[in-house]
Amino acid sequence: MTETTVYSGSGLVHIKNPHLDSMEEDILYHLDLGTKTHNLPAMFGDIKFVCVGGSPNRMRAFAQFMHKELGLAGDGEDLADICAGTDRYAMYRAGPVLSISHSMGIPSISIMLHELIKLLHHAKCRDVTIIRIGTSGGLGIEPGTVVITDTAVDSSFKPRFEQVVLEDVVVRSTELDKDLAKELLACSKEIPEFLTLIGHTMCTYDFYEGQGRLDGALCSFSSEKKLEYLKRAYNAGVRNIEMESTAFAALCGLCGLKAAVVCVALLDRLEGDQIRAPHEVLWEYQQRPQRLIAAFIRKQLGLRPPAGNTLFFTN
Amino acid sequence: MTETTVYSGSGLVHIKNPHLDSMEEDILYHLDLGTKTHNLPAMFGDIKFVCVGGSPNRMRAFAQFMHKELGLAGDGEDLADICAGTDRYAMYRAGPVLSISHSMGIPSISIMLHELIKLLHHAKCRDVTIIRIGTSGGLGIEPGTVVITDTAVDSSFKPRFEQVVLEDVVVRSTELDKDLAKELLACSKEIPEFLTLIGHTMCTYDFYEGQGRLDGALCSFSSEKKLEYLKRAYNAGVRNIEMESTAFAALCGLCGLKAAVVCVALLDRLEGDQIRAPHEVLWEYQQRPQRLIAAFIRKQLGLRPPAGNTLFFTN
Repeated sequence: MTETTVYSGSGLVHIKNPHLDSMEEDILYHLDLGTKTHNLPAMFGDIKFVCVGGSPNRMRAFAQFMHKELGLAGDGEDLADICAGTDRYAMYRAGPVLSISHSMGIPSISIMLHELIKLLHHAKCRDVTIIRIGTSGGLGIEPGTVVITDTAVDSSFKPRFEQVVLEDVVVRSTELDKDLAKELLACSKEIPEFLTLIGHTMCTYDFYEGQGRLDGALCSFSSEKKLEYLKRAYNAGVRNIEMESTAFAALCGLCGLKAAVVCVALLDRLEGDQIRAPHEVLWEYQQRPQRLIAAFIRKQLGLRPPAGNTLFFTN
Repeated sequence: MTETTVYSGSGLVHIKNPHLDSMEEDILYHLDLGTKTHNLPAMFGDIKFVCVGGSPNRMRAFAQFMHKELGLAGDGEDLADICAGTDRYAMYRAGPVLSISHSMGIPSISIMLHELIKLLHHAKCRDVTIIRIGTSGGLGIEPGTVVITDTAVDSSFKPRFEQVVLEDVVVRSTELDKDLAKELLACSKEIPEFLTLIGHTMCTYDFYEGQGRLDGALCSFSSEKKLEYLKRAYNAGVRNIEMESTAFAALCGLCGLKAAVVCVALLDRLEGDQIRAPHEVLWEYQQRPQRLIAAFIRKQLGLRPPAGNTLFFTN
């Protein structure tokens, strides 16, 4: 059974669950929000951009950065965590931009996306663009390079996401929005300080054995076998490796959200496994996708960069 | 290819990676610890119990609780997060007990376990017992019941964990320590305020479609199909469902750690999908595995309950 991406015409989020309408209340448990306890249309109805990433601190920093980039009142330093009642995820907003953490791995981002997509549905949001801004291991590219994903592939380099539904395996498309990827690449031309490119992103269920690392608690393969695998990935078009993109592409695609994945490479996996760069270098790398997305959102909103904009910000 | 659990005789953690010895430095990136930056034997060499759970707040509360239960000096309120330099995981210690969060899902717990197991290896820890204390959905049991896992099974009710290594699938045993499970059940007899039982635990990659929930953003099956699946799981011996136990059992087993999984059921999935109990009820439920493990650790250390011990503590 194969499901393919379908975009809805209304601009509304496309919920595919006939049971949802008959529920008197919907508790978004892991976000600590709900349809009876919160006025979701009032809280979120005007959201146009959702940015998601693994680390809660990074997603708070991104919301603060966007607050400044959009020229909103106040310094944005005291943004409240909308999901403060739970420590599963953190959520912040800056104008029409929602910034949410999803922790690491497909199961964790899936829980967040199911509840986020229901939130956007309940809030009657329209024409939402969703972008994952993350970190990744690069493949044959310089550390610090930003990769815009054209296709998310699995550990066999196939553009598919296998979802277990009850006991059956359903294969889903991992297509992302090609126009959005091109628009993002165009935006990157205005930021010459770092390289941005488009490539395939490989998504795995494991950071160590699943990505061919030699430095886990378990490793049963040789350095040669590892390199042979990674070079095959490179030859298949893979330019970076992370742990969420296939599920993200599949779920967002099925629900009619325009979606993109933009990750910075923290290292080149053809050169090593350990992430050895100093904290301050890694921190600056992590800002690169944020700067690109800020430029894109400003452009979409017809805004110019704020006066006195500091291109680099600190933790 | 099938790998089975092997216990080492020395009491040391059993690292199965020939590459590790030749590394000059080991950076445990997601724990923000390393062999050159930290004296791991001095920091962790005396650790005998490691408790892991999804939520960082809960694992801090558990460390504070253990601090009191072990009669350690001070009130334990200001325990420092040993992994404060990263927000991927949180880690606290109380005497010989380490308490670590792993967030949600197999990929996330796998990253933490690889780095934790290397930490225990570098620190030359001996005879470590590791216990996952978590939350879960119950199956045909009262909410609030504590389930000690005898066997972790996958979504087809099979006691196996499939790990992708490079591109191949390796099948691993999900056996847990049977004697440890029995000892934990014996301890539970001393806590009559709640029910504890032994059963199979089903581990899935997804909270919504993968566990047969009708309340996700996507749902393509009927209520009847859902119940048919969950009843088959019940008939196969499954008493609760969570998202980490098979990987936990497989990794700990291969590395020679005595391991147990003890989860409280927050609801009965035969009765519904949404977690509707009030926060204070859920909070008390989450303390139940902690109380059981505290009783077990005290018994192992030959300690009696502290004077004036409050059985219920608040967030």
